[in-house]
Amino acid sequence: MSSSDIFLGETIGTAVLILLGGGVCAAVTLKRSKAVGAGWVAITFGWGFAVLTAAYISLGLSGAHLNPAVTVGIAVQSGEWGDVPLYVAGQMLGAMAGAALVWVCYYGHFQAHLTDRETAGGPGAEPVPAGGRRSGAPGPVLGVFSTAPEIRHPVQNLATETVATTVLVLAILTQGLTEGLALSGTGVLVTALVVVGLGLSLGGPTGYAINPARDLGPRIVHALLPLPNKGGSDWGYAWVPVAGPLLGGVLAGCLYRLAFT
Amino acid sequence: MSSSDIFLGETIGTAVLILLGGGVCAAVTLKRSKAVGAGWVAITFGWGFAVLTAAYISLGLSGAHLNPAVTVGIAVQSGEWGDVPLYVAGQMLGAMAGAALVWVCYYGHFQAHLTDRETAGGPGAEPVPAGGRRSGAPGPVLGVFSTAPEIRHPVQNLATETVATTVLVLAILTQGLTEGLALSGTGVLVTALVVVGLGLSLGGPTGYAINPARDLGPRIVHALLPLPNKGGSDWGYAWVPVAGPLLGGVLAGCLYRLAFT
Amino acid sequence: MSSSDIFLGETIGTAVLILLGGGVCAAVTLKRSKAVGAGWVAITFGWGFAVLTAAYISLGLSGAHLNPAVTVGIAVQSGEWGDVPLYVAGQMLGAMAGAALVWVCYYGHFQAHLTDRETAGGPGAEPVPAGGRRSGAPGPVLGVFSTAPEIRHPVQNLATETVATTVLVLAILTQGLTEGLALSGTGVLVTALVVVGLGLSLGGPTGYAINPARDLGPRIVHALLPLPNKGGSDWGYAWVPVAGPLLGGVLAGCLYRLAFT
Amino acid sequence: MSSSDIFLGETIGTAVLILLGGGVCAAVTLKRSKAVGAGWVAITFGWGFAVLTAAYISLGLSGAHLNPAVTVGIAVQSGEWGDVPLYVAGQMLGAMAGAALVWVCYYGHFQAHLTDRETAGGPGAEPVPAGGRRSGAPGPVLGVFSTAPEIRHPVQNLATETVATTVLVLAILTQGLTEGLALSGTGVLVTALVVVGLGLSLGGPTGYAINPARDLGPRIVHALLPLPNKGGSDWGYAWVPVAGPLLGGVLAGCLYRLAFT
Repeated sequence: MSSSDIFLGETIGTAVLILLGGGVCAAVTLKRSKAVGAGWVAITFGWGFAVLTAAYISLGLSGAHLNPAVTVGIAVQSGEWGDVPLYVAGQMLGAMAGAALVWVCYYGHFQAHLTDRETAGGPGAEPVPAGGRRSGAPGPVLGVFSTAPEIRHPVQNLATETVATTVLVLAILTQGLTEGLALSGTGVLVTALVVVGLGLSLGGPTGYAINPARDLGPRIVHALLPLPNKGGSDWGYAWVPVAGPLLGGVLAGCLYRLAFT
Repeated sequence: MSSSDIFLGETIGTAVLILLGGGVCAAVTLKRSKAVGAGWVAITFGWGFAVLTAAYISLGLSGAHLNPAVTVGIAVQSGEWGDVPLYVAGQMLGAMAGAALVWVCYYGHFQAHLTDRETAGGPGAEPVPAGGRRSGAPGPVLGVFSTAPEIRHPVQNLATETVATTVLVLAILTQGLTEGLALSGTGVLVTALVVVGLGLSLGGPTGYAINPARDLGPRIVHALLPLPNKGGSDWGYAWVPVAGPLLGGVLAGCLYRLAFT
Repeated sequence: MSSSDIFLGETIGTAVLILLGGGVCAAVTLKRSKAVGAGWVAITFGWGFAVLTAAYISLGLSGAHLNPAVTVGIAVQSGEWGDVPLYVAGQMLGAMAGAALVWVCYYGHFQAHLTDRETAGGPGAEPVPAGGRRSGAPGPVLGVFSTAPEIRHPVQNLATETVATTVLVLAILTQGLTEGLALSGTGVLVTALVVVGLGLSLGGPTGYAINPARDLGPRIVHALLPLPNKGGSDWGYAWVPVAGPLLGGVLAGCLYRLAFT
Repeated sequence: MSSSDIFLGETIGTAVLILLGGGVCAAVTLKRSKAVGAGWVAITFGWGFAVLTAAYISLGLSGAHLNPAVTVGIAVQSGEWGDVPLYVAGQMLGAMAGAALVWVCYYGHFQAHLTDRETAGGPGAEPVPAGGRRSGAPGPVLGVFSTAPEIRHPVQNLATETVATTVLVLAILTQGLTEGLALSGTGVLVTALVVVGLGLSLGGPTGYAINPARDLGPRIVHALLPLPNKGGSDWGYAWVPVAGPLLGGVLAGCLYRLAFT
């Protein structure tokens, strides 16, 4: 794959991933959306099919990593680190573009959501339920962009993100062992459903970032967007959904080399 | 493919698409249906499996476009425009036939729905919830036939439809890059799940027409059907779910030529 | 395929189909089940995955028709009627065995359901909600066994069952047109998801029998089982979910011969 | 397959299975989880995708049995019993490791759940709803680890587990009859969806262990973990979800030999 294909594929693919993944959070959360109250099942399937869509679009260009933890896991497994910066750069740029597109698609709903309440961003304001979340959301619409833990416990939060990402990257790496599955249509479909499963099973505590670009890129966009009453961007938590998934990617790569080869 | 196969395939396929797609809206919306209150998850999976069913039936005859935006996107990508009118004619005819079949299958439920209320179509009447819609529906049963925005904002509405359709058509075009996926069974399954994902993620603002025939055909049938108290057909909005998806198809075709070849 | 394989495959397969299909109705309906209130989405996916399971088990033996409407549709399409009685006999026997197995698996729940209410089967008794059904169920537990319309309108009920079954059988017949799909793993998966879609979209009025054996076999078992307060077996409606699906199978076979060959 | 690959594959695979399967029970049950109230559909899809993820990871190493009932069923079918102890040992060790990982990932939520109530484990305490369960759960958090019947009726409970497991193992064994499906990507996907279906259809009475390791391993971990107010481990019921599934595996193996060869 050429460098431009890698960069383009990861940028377009991650933009689609965050457009659809952030989109389902907006759809279930924001006032006057048709999907308000559709709940956690909608959130988890929405993110899974976001992976499906994004991966199919970018598979032919860049191999559809769309996640620095996947890129790092593959690098640990293969020993080839040369393209890692290029992949991650495309992923971060794409994640930010995707978050901006969510804002475009739900422009009026953000407005309605943030202006229909008296002190939307102030302390003590009613937390915004993002996919069944009923408390602990740090700002009124941050949940559309980034993850937040229900119980703030850095060690547990980090552990949950690490464990979930280890499973994700291990599932992707081991697909190479099944004949004809790697990088085929069925492989992408399986990965998407694995992501649905990870959300259903391990998304309860932290909202399952399991992807540093998925969390950090939209958080930056949240900080930059001119939304009234948007609340803070919760930078104090931002390191967890970056460090946990990266650690999970490394662990998966190591585990693969130890046990599967 | 022969001209008659194309026309027949698109007509039958789009009729099945709208029969099942409109059907799930009727099932979730109309009084005394067993699925009342099944919600947004039912709507989005119902439309996705409508695509699945319709595409399998028509794949061998016409390639299963079933959507003028897909036909236009493929034309922009391939440069071949000769069969476009034939495809679109079949799609429009099929969409109208499918909407009429919804009326046949839910005949008694339309009657019960429209006569159990005092001033069903009058101003101030309780809006019909169509798949979680709680406001903004322009007429009591129009939501079974056509889409309507929750917040009327033509620029945002157009943008949402355009962005969602761009993703859809791009996902269809890029399947040709994955070996053995294009026009195979797995390709159709993936496309159907992409449509579920688009509904979950970007359906919140406008109800995701993402297909001019899906919206315009049933709207014409709504205008023609002899339903009491059916309310207006909301022609003021009708251009958005036609123009947005067509624009999205063109954008996807251009993006494909720029980035993926 | 040998005659004994056909009979055995259809008997085992249809028994599994009705065990799981009737099972999900029991799970969502009967008191003290863990799935009570899981709703229409659970019902429709449960029936779809019942088809999936039953079809995989019987595919190698009998080709997994599991439905007289499918058998008749294939006979109309192929012109070969010799094995039809054998298929239908296996299907009817299997459907009755499956319904009896539902009773075994939910034995205590039937008891609890029927004895926790004062006049369970009498006129004016609270109707049993079977998958979101809130009215029109003719007997307290009949909904676990057979279908019932929400609005009794024989012509519409017949039309809905006929249209839905036409789509089902047409989708099965046309899979032969897609290379490698017919009778493969992907073909069965697609058919199962088509059944989910038909339930979501066209199940609202009648509960989508779309299979004469699925409805008549369990109805006979309902009439025979020694359940207290079980209510009547609603024989007045029993002809609709037999005649409609058979008519749909014939229509699909004819349509296939006209348009797809 | 080498002995070490079998042991490693079953240990890692079953650990992932129980991590994700127990995880979804925790997610839907424990206080302050984002998925609280997501319900029975979330539980059943969560367990199905847990099978999907675990099976893909371990398929290349051990063939992904992940269940003593499957191992026994295959042994009955093939007549080869030599590796059975190795498989079961890996499954039991993995199940216990997976249950411990659920505790790690939901550490704070267990704490919050068990300390927010006055007499959490005492007699008469409010039963913990685990996936729609509203009564009959023997201890406050046992439902995250092991299954419990809604109605205690050993014969029926055993019958339900036996019937459900017979269907599961039969579906796995018969995949070998469909060309190219056995041990391929599609075969695993189908098995995962069959598990979703079994949960929806036959999970109502007992919570569908259908796997002795899935129930016994986590029950041991529940007995060992230092959780305050955790309640008893319900050892009186523990034999049912071991004996029923094993019986089902034997029955499926016998049925396969009788009818399918």
